[in-house]
Amino acid sequence: MSRLSLSDTDKTARDWFAETTSALGCKLITDAMGNQFAVRPGLQDGPPTYAGSHLDTQPTGGRYDGILGVTAAVEMLRVLNDNWVETAYPVGVVNWTNEEGARFPISMVSSGVWAGEIPLSRAHNLREVGGGSATMKSELERVGYLGETPCSHEVVPMAAHFELHIEQGPILEAENRKIGIVQGVQAYRWFSIDVLGADCHTGTTSFAHRADALLAASKMILHSHRAATAASALASTGILTLRPGSTNTVPGSVRFSLDIRASKDSTVEAVEADCKAAFARIAAGEDFGDLNAGGTSGRPCSVAWTTDSVSPAINFHADCIRCVTDAAGDLFGSEMGALTKEMVSGSGHDSVYTSKRVPTTMLFVPCRDGVSHNPREYSTPEDCAVGAQVLLGAVVRYDRM
Amino acid sequence: MSRLSLSDTDKTARDWFAETTSALGCKLITDAMGNQFAVRPGLQDGPPTYAGSHLDTQPTGGRYDGILGVTAAVEMLRVLNDNWVETAYPVGVVNWTNEEGARFPISMVSSGVWAGEIPLSRAHNLREVGGGSATMKSELERVGYLGETPCSHEVVPMAAHFELHIEQGPILEAENRKIGIVQGVQAYRWFSIDVLGADCHTGTTSFAHRADALLAASKMILHSHRAATAASALASTGILTLRPGSTNTVPGSVRFSLDIRASKDSTVEAVEADCKAAFARIAAGEDFGDLNAGGTSGRPCSVAWTTDSVSPAINFHADCIRCVTDAAGDLFGSEMGALTKEMVSGSGHDSVYTSKRVPTTMLFVPCRDGVSHNPREYSTPEDCAVGAQVLLGAVVRYDRM
Ligand SMILES: NC(=O)NCCC(=O)O
Ligand SMILES: NC(=O)NCCC(=O)O
Repeated sequence: MSRLSLSDTDKTARDWFAETTSALGCKLITDAMGNQFAVRPGLQDGPPTYAGSHLDTQPTGGRYDGILGVTAAVEMLRVLNDNWVETAYPVGVVNWTNEEGARFPISMVSSGVWAGEIPLSRAHNLREVGGGSATMKSELERVGYLGETPCSHEVVPMAAHFELHIEQGPILEAENRKIGIVQGVQAYRWFSIDVLGADCHTGTTSFAHRADALLAASKMILHSHRAATAASALASTGILTLRPGSTNTVPGSVRFSLDIRASKDSTVEAVEADCKAAFARIAAGEDFGDLNAGGTSGRPCSVAWTTDSVSPAINFHADCIRCVTDAAGDLFGSEMGALTKEMVSGSGHDSVYTSKRVPTTMLFVPCRDGVSHNPREYSTPEDCAVGAQVLLGAVVRYDRM
Repeated sequence: MSRLSLSDTDKTARDWFAETTSALGCKLITDAMGNQFAVRPGLQDGPPTYAGSHLDTQPTGGRYDGILGVTAAVEMLRVLNDNWVETAYPVGVVNWTNEEGARFPISMVSSGVWAGEIPLSRAHNLREVGGGSATMKSELERVGYLGETPCSHEVVPMAAHFELHIEQGPILEAENRKIGIVQGVQAYRWFSIDVLGADCHTGTTSFAHRADALLAASKMILHSHRAATAASALASTGILTLRPGSTNTVPGSVRFSLDIRASKDSTVEAVEADCKAAFARIAAGEDFGDLNAGGTSGRPCSVAWTTDSVSPAINFHADCIRCVTDAAGDLFGSEMGALTKEMVSGSGHDSVYTSKRVPTTMLFVPCRDGVSHNPREYSTPEDCAVGAQVLLGAVVRYDRM
């Protein structure tokens, strides 16, 4: 699936969402970030209980990430209609814009604006990656989804937000469980690390005369892995670029990303502090564990950190978690213990931002091999159906509460 | 200096070379690779003794690499003329095309064709780097330097080839010496290494579930540095690319270059064999020294090697070396021992190919901080003049021999 946010194919999916939910009796709101809210009236007026997620994908994405949460929420509307269910308050379905951050480079940006955590102007001015000139605002206008309603939790209130999602990890599948009852989202911080040495000729420069930025970066990546292992955290490098990039020139400049995650903020901070101290020693060529040993110490490099984003640990709302637990208990009965697992989300979702304003939680279903952000992404129809069933049960329970 | 081979600015330099050497009384030959041979007649006919190098540069290159060898050779013609010197046989100056390999990606390609080591068709069909459609042949035609003379050591014979070059390394400067008397060129081999793991989400995938191609590549780069240190060799990585390249995706695919050099072929082969065994163990996550220790062992990656080029160690010709030594002795007198150094060239030059067909050697002058392939490249006018003087002395001596 390749459905970048606010592309022509995303417009088609949005049109489908609007037509389908209208046909199911919903009132549609589109806000200034193109977020689509479909509201099914309740017996009384008041802030709706929402289910939702996003319809955009990575450039080479899967068919479930985000999409399952929206389509299961639409199915919820259908089941409520088919069974003549009248909820106490309105029930809604939301499609958040540009969750992936793949086209406009802030993930979860539109729930972030809705929550008042990201300024509208910053979001509107986001330029598409890859050097194009389109901005979020120009593309919202182009596809006809720059809504007149302000993007704000005050103007478009929610009673609660429930998000069904594929796990994007391997645990549920490995343990043969059907529902992950998500307690919160782990903390994470993203950094860009610049290592500066000096370009030189690979054939004529002895190791002692080099300031090899890539050799230093290699040691840093290995150290971050060890430090995270020791702290039961995660550290990952997904991007690395170097200059000048020639077989016979030692790279004088390397930039790499570092993504540190752990269930506690303090653990992320501790790994960050450990890496900051260690990278400085590695760059300086100082004795440091074994990493500078066994080679020839060269000339020092410098190292500089930029913090790109900070996402503190999130605890979801106890009421919402109880609604999911009860709905799963209803479905699984005595197998509840074997088929569910309380877990912490490893990845960020729009629920991170909604949780800052309204009671929120998530539920996960298994996905094959834990693969996500990849066309191989797959969850069985049966697992998706179980997820949709528990989502419906949780929303209805919250509405009754 | 940015004078990529067969660009408009290279044409200007070629025109200058042709006009200047013609004005100095030379006969010009341009061959099918655009190599320019300027020949000053001698008392008798016969293969000329040549001095020369190249006028092309790296994209962000210096003003000395190659250029000094050509301009000093042109200065040699001037000094011979000014002093009414008649050599026994002709003396020549050569400007080799695309030595750098920066625009058309085989370095020293045109001396390679001349020596019969690279097929003409392969060289002519070389496409410019960066995705352009120009080939060496189309650019030779465009700038008017596709000569009618076949590119061959049989058609354009040489008695000998002398090349003055900046050291491109820090040794002469550090030891305060003026002339490097080059004995040969170290062996080198270039490889591309492909490491294949699996893309996965940085937030949801435990270390144990990952096959992290970049973490494995980092260990390999560090290992190659240690193995080369142990063998008194050099190992360098100048290029590293990865996929897919997103902060929150563990890279499933990494490709990096490896440049191994040593004075002996057998040492290069030993480091290659060591790295082949070690990289396989690193990829498999096996216990291996300390590199896989201290982290969490994940799932195995695969690793594949491609050999991009093999350049065996070269020993230059004793007669040529003696001519350089004698010329330097003449200039330095009793300071000869302090001001010269016998050395092995760390980098390849057109002299590598000429040495396969005719007596060849090189001489080096110091360059500041050992910097080359960089606009900061610098050699003092005095050091350049000393180099030119010894070059002249060596060529005249060889001619007399
Ligand atoms: N679900 C997801 O991939 N969100 C993006 C932010 C993150 O990397 O956790
Ligand atoms: N002089 C020079 O940089 N030649 C290119 C081949 C090499 O890397 O040694």
